[in-house]
Amino acid sequence: MPRKLSPNSPKIRYAVVGLGHIAQVAVLPAFAHAENSELGALVSDDPEKLEKLGRKYKVKARYSYDQYEECLSSGSVDAVYIALPNHLHREYSERAARAGVHVLCEKPMAVTEEDCLSMIRVAEENQVKLMVAYRLHFEEANLKAIELVQGGRLGDPRLFDSVFTMTVKKGDIRLNPRELGGGTLYDIGVYCINAVRNLYGAEPMEVMAFSANCGDERFEQCEETTSAILRFPGRERLASFTCSFGAADVSSYRVVGSKGELVMDPAYEYAGELKQRVTIDGRTRERTFPKRDQFAPELIGFSECILTGASPEPSGWEGLADVRVIRALYRSADSGQPVTLEPFVKADRPSLDQELRRPKVKEPELVNTEAPSE
Amino acid sequence: MPRKLSPNSPKIRYAVVGLGHIAQVAVLPAFAHAENSELGALVSDDPEKLEKLGRKYKVKARYSYDQYEECLSSGSVDAVYIALPNHLHREYSERAARAGVHVLCEKPMAVTEEDCLSMIRVAEENQVKLMVAYRLHFEEANLKAIELVQGGRLGDPRLFDSVFTMTVKKGDIRLNPRELGGGTLYDIGVYCINAVRNLYGAEPMEVMAFSANCGDERFEQCEETTSAILRFPGRERLASFTCSFGAADVSSYRVVGSKGELVMDPAYEYAGELKQRVTIDGRTRERTFPKRDQFAPELIGFSECILTGASPEPSGWEGLADVRVIRALYRSADSGQPVTLEPFVKADRPSLDQELRRPKVKEPELVNTEAPSE
Repeated sequence: MPRKLSPNSPKIRYAVVGLGHIAQVAVLPAFAHAENSELGALVSDDPEKLEKLGRKYKVKARYSYDQYEECLSSGSVDAVYIALPNHLHREYSERAARAGVHVLCEKPMAVTEEDCLSMIRVAEENQVKLMVAYRLHFEEANLKAIELVQGGRLGDPRLFDSVFTMTVKKGDIRLNPRELGGGTLYDIGVYCINAVRNLYGAEPMEVMAFSANCGDERFEQCEETTSAILRFPGRERLASFTCSFGAADVSSYRVVGSKGELVMDPAYEYAGELKQRVTIDGRTRERTFPKRDQFAPELIGFSECILTGASPEPSGWEGLADVRVIRALYRSADSGQPVTLEPFVKADRPSLDQELRRPKVKEPELVNTEAPSE
Repeated sequence: MPRKLSPNSPKIRYAVVGLGHIAQVAVLPAFAHAENSELGALVSDDPEKLEKLGRKYKVKARYSYDQYEECLSSGSVDAVYIALPNHLHREYSERAARAGVHVLCEKPMAVTEEDCLSMIRVAEENQVKLMVAYRLHFEEANLKAIELVQGGRLGDPRLFDSVFTMTVKKGDIRLNPRELGGGTLYDIGVYCINAVRNLYGAEPMEVMAFSANCGDERFEQCEETTSAILRFPGRERLASFTCSFGAADVSSYRVVGSKGELVMDPAYEYAGELKQRVTIDGRTRERTFPKRDQFAPELIGFSECILTGASPEPSGWEGLADVRVIRALYRSADSGQPVTLEPFVKADRPSLDQELRRPKVKEPELVNTEAPSE
């Protein structure tokens, strides 16, 4: 159910920090559909991006990274949307928080658990809201999948399996070394981890991963492929996924329960429709969900929290819940040993209450950036 | 291409040893479609099965297990089809071989590598043929999949992922302890392992598995679910699969290459149609393969080898190639450690040359047996 805001509500004014591909194709266009949010400033080191995108979106407040403090203290920005490389999430989030500016940060939240915890603490200390931009937490197909599984329609959910792959171009930021947040798990594995955690409504207790590399020069600084197995507590169950930067586009997951099966394929896309196939007691039902703007709902949801004082969800804890699994999987892939995770509690789970629908955006012309994959 | 035998060829006379579910629904009916093969004897300890099935299939030579030697030395049996519980494969195969009777043995070939090697040696010493009953090595959809992947249509194959699940009933033989060949890997994991070995045309070098158990009394003696990751050499690539006895029916695999994706879903069935979906450069083609008799082709192929002196394929080495991976995966699941495999060479791979098409069989009335799963 789309939530309604009072037409008299003020709008939350955002600075979009980082004007790479995702900012240009998804974040900037989303403001047109986010009725309680306003694009107030642009931050980038590329004068051409600032000039062209500033003109296109009628944003006069344009800043370089050196002028970030100036932007934050200008008084014309209530929140930032952090669309920077992963290793800069923490610094730019905390600087905003310290300036009293609310933070909506792209996933993965940060590179390490320490980064995530620090971001949560600094936001709390400065009494600003912090949200991690999991677009699928507002998206109908995925929320319906969670409802279906959690509602017991498949019986007892016994396994999850997912494949998320793309052919990343040489030189793309996703191929950065791991300490900069490069690698398959930070960029796409995070979707698989987030999906199964919320479909199961549980946190993994033990994980194992193998990484592989075909040896292409593209993959000099990070792995090409990682396959992972996660063990969940309670009525013990497993989950597995494989993510790769070296294979054709696949974005799919399946949950198999004692009574039936749910397949999402495509499952994780923002640039196309999503498809759901549910088989229960041998009867199959298929449904296609149209391409929608998955970023405006994040802006609307976060702005609403700022306006009403509510706690944003997906919170920093949700971001941390995934980062700690990513890090455990890399420890496992590096050491060749399974890794046990400390117990972790996350009571709030995404539900259909969070659903928001906005029409798809038109693909904009790109300024000094390109799609990450072929 | 179906192979033609001379109409004057004699027929190979089989004793079917073990009259459980698979023998009744698939092996016995297949003789009607196996023009070079003849059902010559039945071996079981259940007098009602011997009587009713003997009458139905007009087989007068009926033996208890105590009379197995009598059956083998009767002079009216050229070959046995071993459809016994997994832990009896070795003994009954070797006894046949020692009596000069050829052996067609159900998969998995046996419980241990030692069993497999002994079966191969005893068959050689006694100059009888030995084949392992991998029905999909004669089946169009799966052979086309191998041809497609091996022919480079998907580009470089970068990953394999499979899910094979069913809800096994309490008391079924599949739930036996592992030393009797019970457990998910022996019964259904073997399909995933065999599929990826032949799709990649390679043998895994390192494997890792997690097993899980929901705690149902059904799973007191073996695991409910196993998830596995396999690492293959060369242009390093991974494969993963999950098999479970505690989840609704799924039988699916996917190969993702640098240029496209192949999905088989269902992939491993003999009791229904198989479906293939191929997406290359963004264009998708779907094809359904009708339900066929997958057992007559095994009989025809094996009888042909006996008649012509050719070497049967899938051979004992093919059976061993899977059993050694199963055992390595269980060692890994038990120890929590990855397991390295010795190099192993298997030059002969299934190809469309082996394809044989026969019409589907009618589901027969069952005698003192039932389907293993719900």
